[in-house]
Amino acid sequence: MADVAVLGASGFAGALAARLIDRHPFFELEAVTSRSDAGRRLDELYPQHRVDLVLDAYDADELGAIDAAIVAYPHGAAAPVVAELHERGVKVVDLSADFRLRDLAVYEANYAEHPHPELVADAVYGLPERYREQIARASIVACPGCFPTAAVLALGPLTNPGHVVIDAKTGVSGAGRQATETTHFVSVDENVKAYGVGTHRHTPEIEQELGTRVTFVPHLLPLDQGELLTCYLDTDKDVAARLAEAYADEPFIELVGAPPGVRDVRETNFCRIHAHQDGDRAIVFAAIDNLWKGTASQAVQNLNLMFGRPETEGLL
Amino acid sequence: MADVAVLGASGFAGALAARLIDRHPFFELEAVTSRSDAGRRLDELYPQHRVDLVLDAYDADELGAIDAAIVAYPHGAAAPVVAELHERGVKVVDLSADFRLRDLAVYEANYAEHPHPELVADAVYGLPERYREQIARASIVACPGCFPTAAVLALGPLTNPGHVVIDAKTGVSGAGRQATETTHFVSVDENVKAYGVGTHRHTPEIEQELGTRVTFVPHLLPLDQGELLTCYLDTDKDVAARLAEAYADEPFIELVGAPPGVRDVRETNFCRIHAHQDGDRAIVFAAIDNLWKGTASQAVQNLNLMFGRPETEGLL
Amino acid sequence: MADVAVLGASGFAGALAARLIDRHPFFELEAVTSRSDAGRRLDELYPQHRVDLVLDAYDADELGAIDAAIVAYPHGAAAPVVAELHERGVKVVDLSADFRLRDLAVYEANYAEHPHPELVADAVYGLPERYREQIARASIVACPGCFPTAAVLALGPLTNPGHVVIDAKTGVSGAGRQATETTHFVSVDENVKAYGVGTHRHTPEIEQELGTRVTFVPHLLPLDQGELLTCYLDTDKDVAARLAEAYADEPFIELVGAPPGVRDVRETNFCRIHAHQDGDRAIVFAAIDNLWKGTASQAVQNLNLMFGRPETEGLL
Amino acid sequence: MADVAVLGASGFAGALAARLIDRHPFFELEAVTSRSDAGRRLDELYPQHRVDLVLDAYDADELGAIDAAIVAYPHGAAAPVVAELHERGVKVVDLSADFRLRDLAVYEANYAEHPHPELVADAVYGLPERYREQIARASIVACPGCFPTAAVLALGPLTNPGHVVIDAKTGVSGAGRQATETTHFVSVDENVKAYGVGTHRHTPEIEQELGTRVTFVPHLLPLDQGELLTCYLDTDKDVAARLAEAYADEPFIELVGAPPGVRDVRETNFCRIHAHQDGDRAIVFAAIDNLWKGTASQAVQNLNLMFGRPETEGLL
Repeated sequence: MADVAVLGASGFAGALAARLIDRHPFFELEAVTSRSDAGRRLDELYPQHRVDLVLDAYDADELGAIDAAIVAYPHGAAAPVVAELHERGVKVVDLSADFRLRDLAVYEANYAEHPHPELVADAVYGLPERYREQIARASIVACPGCFPTAAVLALGPLTNPGHVVIDAKTGVSGAGRQATETTHFVSVDENVKAYGVGTHRHTPEIEQELGTRVTFVPHLLPLDQGELLTCYLDTDKDVAARLAEAYADEPFIELVGAPPGVRDVRETNFCRIHAHQDGDRAIVFAAIDNLWKGTASQAVQNLNLMFGRPETEGLL
Repeated sequence: MADVAVLGASGFAGALAARLIDRHPFFELEAVTSRSDAGRRLDELYPQHRVDLVLDAYDADELGAIDAAIVAYPHGAAAPVVAELHERGVKVVDLSADFRLRDLAVYEANYAEHPHPELVADAVYGLPERYREQIARASIVACPGCFPTAAVLALGPLTNPGHVVIDAKTGVSGAGRQATETTHFVSVDENVKAYGVGTHRHTPEIEQELGTRVTFVPHLLPLDQGELLTCYLDTDKDVAARLAEAYADEPFIELVGAPPGVRDVRETNFCRIHAHQDGDRAIVFAAIDNLWKGTASQAVQNLNLMFGRPETEGLL
Repeated sequence: MADVAVLGASGFAGALAARLIDRHPFFELEAVTSRSDAGRRLDELYPQHRVDLVLDAYDADELGAIDAAIVAYPHGAAAPVVAELHERGVKVVDLSADFRLRDLAVYEANYAEHPHPELVADAVYGLPERYREQIARASIVACPGCFPTAAVLALGPLTNPGHVVIDAKTGVSGAGRQATETTHFVSVDENVKAYGVGTHRHTPEIEQELGTRVTFVPHLLPLDQGELLTCYLDTDKDVAARLAEAYADEPFIELVGAPPGVRDVRETNFCRIHAHQDGDRAIVFAAIDNLWKGTASQAVQNLNLMFGRPETEGLL
Repeated sequence: MADVAVLGASGFAGALAARLIDRHPFFELEAVTSRSDAGRRLDELYPQHRVDLVLDAYDADELGAIDAAIVAYPHGAAAPVVAELHERGVKVVDLSADFRLRDLAVYEANYAEHPHPELVADAVYGLPERYREQIARASIVACPGCFPTAAVLALGPLTNPGHVVIDAKTGVSGAGRQATETTHFVSVDENVKAYGVGTHRHTPEIEQELGTRVTFVPHLLPLDQGELLTCYLDTDKDVAARLAEAYADEPFIELVGAPPGVRDVRETNFCRIHAHQDGDRAIVFAAIDNLWKGTASQAVQNLNLMFGRPETEGLL
């Protein structure tokens, strides 16, 4: 048994992380906190999760003796809390971007001044299929962004992918719980539109992991959860064979014979991948649930590794 | 030709009213105003309407020599503007609730103190199928709420309907342009929920027109525009025959032989009605587009009457 | 351990039942059959369920030594199979209408001649919250229709409810897997429409259980899973108090203080109920997932009872 | 005045074409035909179009003295009818693929043996923005496919675009009226999936018009009407400037400063285009309504040209 707190549990990802920990055979959900909704019941905000706890304001001293924390704060706000918990010996999975980029200059060019640059080198990029051993020994794990998760799973095993085009389609939950013109039902319904063209902050994260230049264009779709990446690359290598080799033993990677739909992986930690070869071009499709494998369930997968548990525990 | 201004054109209903006036053969769209978005282009906010005008701040002196105005303000904010324009001899169609309720006490019990009680008696309830002649002579027309429009069209011709149950289903545009938890895509998508049970302010408006007690329960559905009312009443009279008689010559009422869907009337000024008799019970279905017949196109239908134009002009 | 076969597992309800049995700690999924898709893999038809079995053609002799079966056949086709399995000593949960109506005349007036009238008296109506003890001893359980499940849970505890109006809203999965004009995306999307007015076969089933006349009108909504019933009744009794008393110890009934949304119960066996009193009228809302509590998970709840297992096993 | 028949008016595109002709100031809708639904009323199949005509079986002799026809048949079935009408001196706009491909070998490799190869050279590719003069003189116009329409409008003005990647997102109406597993609401809702990868028959049509190799991947989205193309190309030329020059006087092309959404062009004949330059790469977005500019309203735009009418008549 290990006691876990979820910080920022009033957001979509934090709330789901709280539910997954709450149902987990090994972890115990010790506390949930919220900056905006302290005092409210989590099962009032998210009836579907049925987590019977009241959201607290965060206070490191009052969290009690926790073994681990999942921090679901926005970038910038996450790092100070990660640092504070780290100092107290708490293992942390951070869902923000604060510790994903190894090159501080890239972080600061895309976000802002880093509040705790001294910890960047300690953090491990939390994609288990790529950094399993390092995660097992880490005390700070930076959970990847949802797009980078799918992109790196789709293309990471390929060497020299060249200049890659990634056309991403995502559901609205990826935009978070905040009510804005963008997330208004009437803006999204019967619509599809690209956003963040040329400026999306997941681009440098994908480029860091793939080691190549990426043209990345996300599109917002009229659906709740789910993310599909269509990746176009110039290569005459047998991409499907390479992926099959790389993922032979992966519990959460499903290589399939036809383009996957996001429904196939809805509310799961699976990533479903299909590769199509067209002479000297290849197309790789990767589908995940942006809130699950793209965020919250991947956080639990990381925690499983950090505590020496079976990697799939609580996730099947 | 008559010059028309649309006040509050940055909201869903106001913007659509602006588009309908802009395309109208007789009316000229002279100005569009907004309290929140003055200075922005209307076709930037609503590309689909293609109205090439900049939103102004409202100032009665700068509106120029307009003949009529459609006021798309919230209740309370509408009445002072209606009064000011009325004083200047401008004919007004008010989309708010401020002049719909003839009994001031009912208004104040449901809304707030009335800013201009002296004008209430001058205003005509703008349901053309019921008050055509009065509207033609009116200088202030209070456009009905979307639910009352459908309810009164469905049940108005019946005498002594008894205690009526109205179960309403509406799309999200009825909740307006404001981004809230209620209008967030993730709240609405794959969901259906009742709201305003026992407190919805359209209830007294329906009761005023029907002259009977009403149990009215609206439900929010995952669709953009459209409103379906399912009305249950105790009666062994031939409801269909009564409606057929009442609506024999109505250009915008379609009596049909099966339950209508809201798609049948999407983006039109039509109300489609079906009556089903089950012994001593009857069920009447009425479908409208909440932004069209429920608000903006009905406003234009009223303006047509007020200016002696063919009632269907600009609406087919 | 008990071995279970799911017959008709290529339909929406059967496939979900197969998944629930496949993940169940006590039951073992022994076989899945299909009349239309024999030979295909279930996880090819329903990737999201991840049930790694091939659909067989049904043959009682080749099913092997099963302890129980869930029969997901249409009415008329179900009864002969239920009879055959019953004769072999297999416990059966039948998802069809064949054994729900105790009065054969009512069955034959609404469906067709009954293939096995001699078994009707043996069957127990499979609503655990109402017939828990009988189900535990039954060898044939007739799982209620989805609408009757929600209706009887909402209103069953009330005595003398009078003439009840039930306005139902359902997602498209309730219409089954068959591709028809009704289930075409373009027919449903941005639409809402009543169907089966005055003829829906769930009406006599609801009336049997409630012992009162019911006006029942279902509406098809643009969502996948989920069912909301809005029930209107004439009563000045304290409905909420009565429900609280009746459901004090029910594991799957959630009485809540505000109208429930179907998202609150999506992919769960819960029924969420809210009662609103308005003088001499009451409104009771009940939300379920039509494929779960409305069909497949309720079948598993019944099986749990029939095998003396904890009622919630495999369902939380 | 010119008399027009719409053949195949029971499909989505044909029905919309019938409505547009029915409302057109110059054209008269003389007849509507259907192979599958002869004898049914068009406004029963499509209440929203309000076209008060009965569908006939097609018989060239009984069509009467028509001046033009819009043929909305599947490929293969269209050519014989086009030939027959052409022989009688009727001007034809064909919505099928039968006369789009100038190279017979390409047609036969992608479809089947051509029923009327002798007419292929007579037909003009019906993209007005590209072949305006030829269309005006043509007696057979082959209306482009929906994807080629958007693709050629987006990229046609560019010289030497190189190997282009086109990632397309489309609503379900593009799949037609037939009820299949693909068009079932439950298959599409909360889903997104690629289809026809490497085999879609619009690829050779796009390649014919662009004169370059194209990687084209369409995706099916949970929306009714609308199509967005995201086109990736290797070029350091100023794509936006080139498009601005090419489309300076086009009434239906809207060049915009941000990625368009399909809602912006819903139920219009507009194509909205945005170009984003990223060094030596460019991304061009093009949004159309697949049933309007992608099919039926473009057919009317072609007819306007063929009869010397203002190009926008009946389309604004």
